[in-house]
Amino acid sequence: VTQRLFTPGPVEIPDRILSALAKRPPHHRSAVFRELYAGLTPRLNTLFATSGRVVVLAASGTGGMDAAVTAFVGEGTGTLTAEAGKFGDRWEKILRSYGHNPHVVRAEWGRAVPPGEIGKALDEHGADVVFLTHSETSTATLHALRALAAEAQRRGVLVVADVVTSLGVHEFRQDDFGVDVAVAGSQKGLMLPPGLALVGLGERALARLESDGVRGPAFYLDLKKASDSATTGDTPYTPAVSLVMALDEAVRMIEELGIEEVWRRHDAVASAVRAGGVAAGLRLFSESPANSVTAFLPPDGVQAKQVVAHLADKHGFVLAGGQDRLKGKIARVGHMGLAYGADDARRVSEALEEAVIDLGGGGERGRAAQAVAASLAEKPCES
Amino acid sequence: VTQRLFTPGPVEIPDRILSALAKRPPHHRSAVFRELYAGLTPRLNTLFATSGRVVVLAASGTGGMDAAVTAFVGEGTGTLTAEAGKFGDRWEKILRSYGHNPHVVRAEWGRAVPPGEIGKALDEHGADVVFLTHSETSTATLHALRALAAEAQRRGVLVVADVVTSLGVHEFRQDDFGVDVAVAGSQKGLMLPPGLALVGLGERALARLESDGVRGPAFYLDLKKASDSATTGDTPYTPAVSLVMALDEAVRMIEELGIEEVWRRHDAVASAVRAGGVAAGLRLFSESPANSVTAFLPPDGVQAKQVVAHLADKHGFVLAGGQDRLKGKIARVGHMGLAYGADDARRVSEALEEAVIDLGGGGERGRAAQAVAASLAEKPCES
Repeated sequence: VTQRLFTPGPVEIPDRILSALAKRPPHHRSAVFRELYAGLTPRLNTLFATSGRVVVLAASGTGGMDAAVTAFVGEGTGTLTAEAGKFGDRWEKILRSYGHNPHVVRAEWGRAVPPGEIGKALDEHGADVVFLTHSETSTATLHALRALAAEAQRRGVLVVADVVTSLGVHEFRQDDFGVDVAVAGSQKGLMLPPGLALVGLGERALARLESDGVRGPAFYLDLKKASDSATTGDTPYTPAVSLVMALDEAVRMIEELGIEEVWRRHDAVASAVRAGGVAAGLRLFSESPANSVTAFLPPDGVQAKQVVAHLADKHGFVLAGGQDRLKGKIARVGHMGLAYGADDARRVSEALEEAVIDLGGGGERGRAAQAVAASLAEKPCES
Repeated sequence: VTQRLFTPGPVEIPDRILSALAKRPPHHRSAVFRELYAGLTPRLNTLFATSGRVVVLAASGTGGMDAAVTAFVGEGTGTLTAEAGKFGDRWEKILRSYGHNPHVVRAEWGRAVPPGEIGKALDEHGADVVFLTHSETSTATLHALRALAAEAQRRGVLVVADVVTSLGVHEFRQDDFGVDVAVAGSQKGLMLPPGLALVGLGERALARLESDGVRGPAFYLDLKKASDSATTGDTPYTPAVSLVMALDEAVRMIEELGIEEVWRRHDAVASAVRAGGVAAGLRLFSESPANSVTAFLPPDGVQAKQVVAHLADKHGFVLAGGQDRLKGKIARVGHMGLAYGADDARRVSEALEEAVIDLGGGGERGRAAQAVAASLAEKPCES
């Protein structure tokens, strides 16, 4: 069985991007690479919708989160995190590993953190920097990033956001949303293999980096050094040249379609998958479902792990299970990037339906396809 | 003009490795990837010649150096570095960025650090960890790593070595050399694009990691976490899957030839380049030339930068200039990896000869080719 990834990153990589990866990379201190980088820089600003600067690190998304913490948090910096899943929790873990003690606003996993609670917590506990999550991958939940950030901005608090599974998926406009620092990864909406972290730095973040303010310990992941060379392509250490070439191609694909159409397309595919899965007898885990990944609870008597295994065995569809406390409880269907379309929504929904029936969860063949078709009629999307 | 890299990393990537990069990568939490990783693990141990463990990080080589510092140096750890070039100096820079104050044993750039001086400095100043460099890329100098490490081992001092441009180039046997921690990068002897750091951890380093000893601050670059999962492929964060697939292919290429033949081949190519360049009127910068890269001083009246530009313009041969205090003073010809052979040695030497003549440095056409041929007759190498 040929595999097809329906995982929440890495995702299926379009052929155009694989071809870019197979190209002989130029030397990173050559004019060819500097031109590539200089050409990419303003387009990354457009992608993040920031007038600041986007830094590209050879690291996974977590490396970017780590860099964002040490760049803006030092001794005495007050921090607050919003946690409603594994990746919200990661902010706290990183902060604690550097000896900080953030105030954590928690919401039940599967729910979104109410913006009002961030405002309340900031009034009660104060903070200099807040750490937020846009699309929480572990629970397939979209947080109201703009409203969350507004609570912090209103109080003059710096906003750092994990947009790893929302960039190129959900509407995100860094400056307009009031996000000072936005961390993304390559293997999600950007459709690349893992290995790059992108950090969008708004004007206020850049000013803060330039100032003599406190910061944490960093050498390789030093955002200030990386930022100083972000526009010239003279990265402080050797960049992952092949992945940068592939990033250039990925951004081109997004530009060709237009970012708003990219967002719309993700909404169409995600809506169809949600409709199809529910028609197959599954329930949505999240109260605020993201368009990056869909988390399903199986019907009574069926185990999430069985569903995941069924799709892998029968169709080669690779879904993800739950993480941490959700291990064994949910099945997650990823649908980030332009490799996913109407056909995928239909095929994965039909496979989910077949799994539920085969595993004794009941149902009737054809309902999922019908629901997918109805959803696509309302929100169309190409294959 | 088609470009050909003669840079000291990244290097020309063999087609087999480019093809591996263009493959659709499996998900990193899948059985396919775990099998790939589990199969790769013992072969990396063989490559490093360690009974310990080799950790693969999604980062450039400097990320691996950073990780090695924070994993083994904490408050109160005594440190000593050997510095005779930009990369020896980088150990000091990293240590200082984390608030440490190493004792630095310096040698003139272009010379190797005498092992006896390390012994003397350890006796005088003491240290818990020493930081060494095997092949110093900035000066094209080979250090006597085994003898340097022996001085430390004799005194019970932990040895961390930068083998970035020696792994897969020069004889290196981690355990036998007495190196506890060896840091390598993907874009040198391993012939990959940049984006992976490899850290070989010997038994003593692993025991130290397991102990409750002091260490520095790290989250993404935490070697202990990475080491715990190094044998299972369950990396703490998303690995750079494409580069790991390509690494598998690179290690296979080295295995097919045999590591000793790989070392011999590098010696043959480097010897031929040195002979050719000298016959062309250039002088060797290093007193202890490495086989990874050759640094040339131009003849009087010719600028190193002119030589580099001449080869780029006329032949598309991309050389490197000098770094830091050697900027503008030397031209460096890289020849790491199996993409370089006898033809390259001849072509680059002839191009150097032509450049020297054209730039008014004198000489006679044909001498370089003759010297290369003589060298290859003594130390043969395929094209």
